[in-house]
Amino acid sequence: MNMYDIILKKRNGQILSKEEINHFVTGFTDGSIPDYQASAFMMALFFQKMNEEETVYLTEAMMNSGDVLDLSQIEGIKVDKHSTGGVGDTTTLVLGPMVAAAGAPVAKMSGRGLGHTGGTVDKLESFPGFSVEITNDEFIKNVNEIKLSVSAQTGDLAPADKKIYALRDVTATVDNMSLIASSIMSKKLASGADAIVLDVKTGSGAFMKELDDSFELAKIMVNIGNNMGRETVAVISNMDQPLGNMIGNILEVKEAIETLQGKGPEDLYELCLSLGAQMLILSKVAKDEEEAREKLEEVVNNGSALEIFKEFITRQGGNGDLIDHPDLFPKAKYIVEVKATNDGYIEHIEADEVGMSALELGAGRQTKDSVIDLSVGIELIKKVGDQVNIGDTIAIIHSNDEDKTKRSIERLLKAYSFSDEKIPSSKLIYGIVNKDGDFR
Amino acid sequence: MNMYDIILKKRNGQILSKEEINHFVTGFTDGSIPDYQASAFMMALFFQKMNEEETVYLTEAMMNSGDVLDLSQIEGIKVDKHSTGGVGDTTTLVLGPMVAAAGAPVAKMSGRGLGHTGGTVDKLESFPGFSVEITNDEFIKNVNEIKLSVSAQTGDLAPADKKIYALRDVTATVDNMSLIASSIMSKKLASGADAIVLDVKTGSGAFMKELDDSFELAKIMVNIGNNMGRETVAVISNMDQPLGNMIGNILEVKEAIETLQGKGPEDLYELCLSLGAQMLILSKVAKDEEEAREKLEEVVNNGSALEIFKEFITRQGGNGDLIDHPDLFPKAKYIVEVKATNDGYIEHIEADEVGMSALELGAGRQTKDSVIDLSVGIELIKKVGDQVNIGDTIAIIHSNDEDKTKRSIERLLKAYSFSDEKIPSSKLIYGIVNKDGDFR
Repeated sequence: MNMYDIILKKRNGQILSKEEINHFVTGFTDGSIPDYQASAFMMALFFQKMNEEETVYLTEAMMNSGDVLDLSQIEGIKVDKHSTGGVGDTTTLVLGPMVAAAGAPVAKMSGRGLGHTGGTVDKLESFPGFSVEITNDEFIKNVNEIKLSVSAQTGDLAPADKKIYALRDVTATVDNMSLIASSIMSKKLASGADAIVLDVKTGSGAFMKELDDSFELAKIMVNIGNNMGRETVAVISNMDQPLGNMIGNILEVKEAIETLQGKGPEDLYELCLSLGAQMLILSKVAKDEEEAREKLEEVVNNGSALEIFKEFITRQGGNGDLIDHPDLFPKAKYIVEVKATNDGYIEHIEADEVGMSALELGAGRQTKDSVIDLSVGIELIKKVGDQVNIGDTIAIIHSNDEDKTKRSIERLLKAYSFSDEKIPSSKLIYGIVNKDGDFR
Repeated sequence: MNMYDIILKKRNGQILSKEEINHFVTGFTDGSIPDYQASAFMMALFFQKMNEEETVYLTEAMMNSGDVLDLSQIEGIKVDKHSTGGVGDTTTLVLGPMVAAAGAPVAKMSGRGLGHTGGTVDKLESFPGFSVEITNDEFIKNVNEIKLSVSAQTGDLAPADKKIYALRDVTATVDNMSLIASSIMSKKLASGADAIVLDVKTGSGAFMKELDDSFELAKIMVNIGNNMGRETVAVISNMDQPLGNMIGNILEVKEAIETLQGKGPEDLYELCLSLGAQMLILSKVAKDEEEAREKLEEVVNNGSALEIFKEFITRQGGNGDLIDHPDLFPKAKYIVEVKATNDGYIEHIEADEVGMSALELGAGRQTKDSVIDLSVGIELIKKVGDQVNIGDTIAIIHSNDEDKTKRSIERLLKAYSFSDEKIPSSKLIYGIVNKDGDFR
């Protein structure tokens, strides 16, 4: 078996065998297959695609290219959640405590990464003293005792995926469904969860702009998970505008606290209920969606989700008292109101532009070495569908630098478009994909 | 401008600008664009193709990546000939003296290369003492005085093509019309001829197996040449079986001598008349095909083509007397007859297999360092359409090694297929492509 023949076979539209796909993943990871053959292969895949079986083989090979974590010491069915990424996505911070309080174990490995704002770990570090650098034993103990812990990613998970992704990123071969799906799923599967709930974002602020593409990606990932013996469900959710109102690290933590108090933005709470319900069903804590949603609403209403959140922050060294007194979080130096430039209805808020505007302020990392400014960010006062007059405050910038404020406002205003007509409200949840099919 | 955007643009089926194509060729040649981007680009090109303009730009950029030879000191219109390659192709050795004797300058740069048999230089070295290592002045003087000289390739011609070809060869991106055409034409254009005649082979022994593909390739190359200001004509010729009867270096030289004496195989002579006629027309030595063929037949019939051949060999240090006494060429140790294994008509002789059979004997190079055995080869006694009975001699093996003989015979027999029915004769010349269109 040699790589030339494998490239040729795929180029000519033939189906690759499990052995051929393994040969590529193993050889590329150990360096015996050169970059230039791998990139030609990726481009051939872009055009000729992979079928469901090939995609499962690719995912399995990438998963097996590194460590596969064992979470068997944790009691119960461990359900992991993964989001395909959007702007202002505070979901994990809310969902974790809700699901844990409802009785399902939430054992999360989390990283930092690049982005408009920090990752989950960065956001949690808004609590002074909080650390994800805990031992494996502490991690397991915490999940068993309070059902919730977040640990720094240990082990070398799916190194083949890292290497392949780095190559795709510079050779215009990122946007292929099988490659996207196998990249996400190989890492999720390697991190040891028993079941997976996928939050597949769709719309202008998401990687997948079109609804049909989002359903297709969801179906491929659900098929991979179920084929690998891990029950997988995807929820297709709207990312046409940022989720919730806050974009920025401390701002999002405050929003998460408010949501756990039952006072958060409606869209964020509803998405957490939808995703959480699927997690409870997969972990067998609830038998159906109705029961699951009841349990989740109950733990918010009776304060137990917020209690778990506080306990979790405290156990990992953070100052949990801030949850009761969020006003004590550090504040940005400049609080600047952004005014509407048009009369009418807000037609669209380009989520990517809002994200870039937050990045200008220092809320996220542009390079691996960037230092995040936890207190800065953007608060959206008006969202799509709201009626405004010129001069009304549509957003508030939290900034520590005047120049950055200026650049951020310029960028933010570009994100908004206005209309004279009333804007029909759009769906938050477009549907569900599970082993029985897709339900819109 | 960056390579990522260029890959993406072509991947999405858009047309590249001259500047973008130059950016790729220049950057890949100087090493600033890495192999892995170039190979992804080649694969995108394989699927999305290049249009005529892009192909001209690519060729021009590759031509300009190295030296461009200046043959202006040679009198007359210099017409170069290029064959896309086949088995037993002795054309150059016959065509050169014929065209020179008819009055058109033949100034040929030639290399060695890999193949079933040696290249033109290797074949000419069958004359003891002959050398292509002559000075530029000698080369020009010879062409001006006797209209014929062959020199080792000087200068660094189209290094971009060499680098791109090496990458295509290992990434399954060789078979793309624009890439094949620009590879051939960039080298031809850099070697300084005023006009070009292309011998585009078609059939099972050629790179292009299908007639339509051969015409398409011819049209692209003719378009490139004419766009670059060098009149270019292509002749589409049959390579379903080996051309002529001899495959091997000394054997082909002897066949060339016989053909120049008017006693050679009909197909070889006819192809030389067809190609030579186009060369004479392009060099303005003849006004049309009829006049050109007359001139060419005349120089064969009156012996002047053979005289030029002898003078050319002698001037470059070779023993020209061998032309009068070809029996004095070294002979192989074993002369073994190969017998027909079936009664009937020869339906097909797979040219590639005959070539591999000659390679087994040592007639060509398997690697750059192989030493060619000039005396070995294969003599085809029966060709397609001939009637044979079991035991009739269909070919003769000339070999210097018993084991190699055995392997060669085995391979050769695989090349033949037989039929009970009479075989309809096939065309030798399928048509011509020139600036006015294609004529079948």
